[in-house]
Amino acid sequence: MKISELAERIAARLESASASNDREVSDVTSFAQARPQSVVFVEQERFLDAALISDAGAVIVPEALAISPDVLSEGQGKAILRSANPRLAFARAADELRRAQPHTPGVHASAVVDASAELDPTASIGELVVIAAGVKIGPRTRIGPGCVVLADVVIGADCDLVARVTVYSGTTLGERVIVQAGAVLGGDGFGFVPDPATGKYHKFPQIGRLEIGDDVEIGANTTIDRGALEATIISSGVKLDNLVQVGHNVRIGHNVVVASQTGISGSTVIEDGVIIGGQVGIADHVVIGSGVILGAQAGVPTKKVIRGKGLFWGTPARPIGEYLKELATLSRLTKKK
Amino acid sequence: MKISELAERIAARLESASASNDREVSDVTSFAQARPQSVVFVEQERFLDAALISDAGAVIVPEALAISPDVLSEGQGKAILRSANPRLAFARAADELRRAQPHTPGVHASAVVDASAELDPTASIGELVVIAAGVKIGPRTRIGPGCVVLADVVIGADCDLVARVTVYSGTTLGERVIVQAGAVLGGDGFGFVPDPATGKYHKFPQIGRLEIGDDVEIGANTTIDRGALEATIISSGVKLDNLVQVGHNVRIGHNVVVASQTGISGSTVIEDGVIIGGQVGIADHVVIGSGVILGAQAGVPTKKVIRGKGLFWGTPARPIGEYLKELATLSRLTKKK
Amino acid sequence: MKISELAERIAARLESASASNDREVSDVTSFAQARPQSVVFVEQERFLDAALISDAGAVIVPEALAISPDVLSEGQGKAILRSANPRLAFARAADELRRAQPHTPGVHASAVVDASAELDPTASIGELVVIAAGVKIGPRTRIGPGCVVLADVVIGADCDLVARVTVYSGTTLGERVIVQAGAVLGGDGFGFVPDPATGKYHKFPQIGRLEIGDDVEIGANTTIDRGALEATIISSGVKLDNLVQVGHNVRIGHNVVVASQTGISGSTVIEDGVIIGGQVGIADHVVIGSGVILGAQAGVPTKKVIRGKGLFWGTPARPIGEYLKELATLSRLTKKK
Repeated sequence: MKISELAERIAARLESASASNDREVSDVTSFAQARPQSVVFVEQERFLDAALISDAGAVIVPEALAISPDVLSEGQGKAILRSANPRLAFARAADELRRAQPHTPGVHASAVVDASAELDPTASIGELVVIAAGVKIGPRTRIGPGCVVLADVVIGADCDLVARVTVYSGTTLGERVIVQAGAVLGGDGFGFVPDPATGKYHKFPQIGRLEIGDDVEIGANTTIDRGALEATIISSGVKLDNLVQVGHNVRIGHNVVVASQTGISGSTVIEDGVIIGGQVGIADHVVIGSGVILGAQAGVPTKKVIRGKGLFWGTPARPIGEYLKELATLSRLTKKK
Repeated sequence: MKISELAERIAARLESASASNDREVSDVTSFAQARPQSVVFVEQERFLDAALISDAGAVIVPEALAISPDVLSEGQGKAILRSANPRLAFARAADELRRAQPHTPGVHASAVVDASAELDPTASIGELVVIAAGVKIGPRTRIGPGCVVLADVVIGADCDLVARVTVYSGTTLGERVIVQAGAVLGGDGFGFVPDPATGKYHKFPQIGRLEIGDDVEIGANTTIDRGALEATIISSGVKLDNLVQVGHNVRIGHNVVVASQTGISGSTVIEDGVIIGGQVGIADHVVIGSGVILGAQAGVPTKKVIRGKGLFWGTPARPIGEYLKELATLSRLTKKK
Repeated sequence: MKISELAERIAARLESASASNDREVSDVTSFAQARPQSVVFVEQERFLDAALISDAGAVIVPEALAISPDVLSEGQGKAILRSANPRLAFARAADELRRAQPHTPGVHASAVVDASAELDPTASIGELVVIAAGVKIGPRTRIGPGCVVLADVVIGADCDLVARVTVYSGTTLGERVIVQAGAVLGGDGFGFVPDPATGKYHKFPQIGRLEIGDDVEIGANTTIDRGALEATIISSGVKLDNLVQVGHNVRIGHNVVVASQTGISGSTVIEDGVIIGGQVGIADHVVIGSGVILGAQAGVPTKKVIRGKGLFWGTPARPIGEYLKELATLSRLTKKK
């Protein structure tokens, strides 16, 4: 992709018309890994020199960063892209360049694909993949090596299941969904009915759906259960880190971010835009309102409703100011004793 | 299965002899998904109407729920099954109907099965499964796509390893064990001996067994270690959620329930019927007595013995009343200051 | 291996020259599983009898443990190996005997190996393994069934990837690395840039490396992310338990031990020899200094530096004495009320 075209796509401003603006770039990198076809970025002035002496062909810099001509000359004709948010511009550049990569469609000879599956001709099915009956796979979607896609799953366009992902029946994925290795989508939820006469637990049916929107990313070895009778919903733009657990009938709103090893129990609702730290535990039938940030290791008891702007911490989760005051009180009383 | 036969099997009482009692049913569903061959259930009167206007062929209702003739007529000839515990009856119906499903035995052509393995002729071995030397698989057991069963593992009758499960050598499974995708059964425990001279750790042998009883369910990406020299024991009726960790030499009693992301360290004993919430951490050489319930995120320190009836919470875990009083004291003292 | 040779390798002293010292041994076991070619060990006098009446061919005992001739005669000619640290000697014996096992090199017919991969002729590639383009596998390394090794990965000598391990591009493993089933090495880290205009998150490039040293062990279903632009470093001698999460750009020093379900966030540094309990949460950009032990479920907030010898506990993590005093204060004040 020409630098001038990339600049337009990521809403960056080219410093000046120059021959370098017509050069082609194909990837984003660190300074050390950069080659002439690479794009790098700088947020702070102190890294500018390192960027300019790297081999990168283009550097994204803050709008306001002054670059003196003699410093610039170090760059030996690098294209300079100005952005109000260089980090965001760099992320968007990565995305644009990734999509521009040549895509090799086709089904690897070692994959086991049921005759009734409907694969878009531009989809790519990797080594030792299993695609069961009735599955539908959209355009340009890549199913990486060792994935298992069970009956009747529907996967939209431009998805990437990297490797060894399992998708259960009853699951649908939107577009541009990225799933890291080992994730399990749509497994049975944890629902059992005790028989008081025997002390034994009987499995409650786990036969609902899992609906995943667009632009979702799901981390390695994360598990998301299908609904018991109804559906588990992961809305568009949700990002789940590694080893996260999402229980049955949970509804996660748009653009929610969940860090590693957090667990969300059955029937809980997480509203749009919520940010959840690592190792947070959220019990069942909880509501977490938009604007809430849950700090790492926070715990939210069953049926609790948390609303408000800002950070909640501790177990049971409370406003951060309250929690810190309590810690200070305890420390003071202990020392006084 | 005829509704009348199902009623008998789940100990439900048919409301009245009618032609509908001879109809066949084949699955359990939500109201929305119901078809004439479906069974649904109602626990509260306010859902009765929805059940009766669904397409279900049979409705399980509480013994005591009064149904007026004009409401019943909405049901257009549905069979009404009375039960003292409709939820349990529904769960048992799901189980009965699942077992009645036709089972397709056989070994998929893409599976790699060692010649010395003994597979019951009614077992079903899925796509791209690996079955190593000396493995024994019981009647009607289903090994789903992508599973790896290592040497000399013994799996009983009517088990279901859904997909991508790994079973290490030294592991035995009883009957009717369900294992969700990605679980790892019988992996090496975490045991190392430090060499004071070098600061290095040497692996202590992890060569014991893992013995899993009957009617156990194991969640997605859960890991259970084999014993170091002896055995790890998961007794019959145990239900483990997703992403649970069970260390080497642990002994879990009958009908214990463990929610997601809980970890149980080496040589700990969990007695029959214990209930353990999510993200609980139990250190090594602990004993949790029958009757104990551990609340979510509770922590139990090494060698601790917890006995008594009721809920324990916090770290270190203490009776819930004590813990809540302490939280209240801290909050009060902080506000007073 | 002759007992006399084994004794030399593990720095144990044979009790006396005898015919039994020339016998061959081939494994380590518990007393119950012992056969004449087995080695067992005893740390305390009270277990000596059980060792001597077992079928083992050799018993490792403490230097100082007095054994009377009539007790010894129970052993029927067992070789007695004296060691200052019998547990360590036993662990080392296990290691020596494991390495002496015959190794069957070769590529299973069902594996899918790219023509450009460089496999040492003594390497062993199991059933249904995927080896992508440019991968290098060292001498005697075993890639177990169902593993997926993506492009350009480099794996050193004598490694053991047990089963169903995924290794992403950009990852290198040293020598003698053991990886339990389901682990994911080098997956994308969790990095997103919010677009304030839309509320959407854009994926920050996760294109760095993962470098794993020698003698590392990685537990089942553990996930280690590659660097974002630079590298994640796991130094030699590190032992990670099951279901551990290591974020992007983390640097873990030599001989660090991390118990199950602990999470280490991005760019954190763990210095040599640190010991970390289970379910510990360490935020991003933290430094944990050598000599620190983090107790189970401890939490370390972002950018915190913890230095000192000894045990830290609680969230936020503080010296154990301080934490226990605070617990005592709270308990006392609550009871007084």
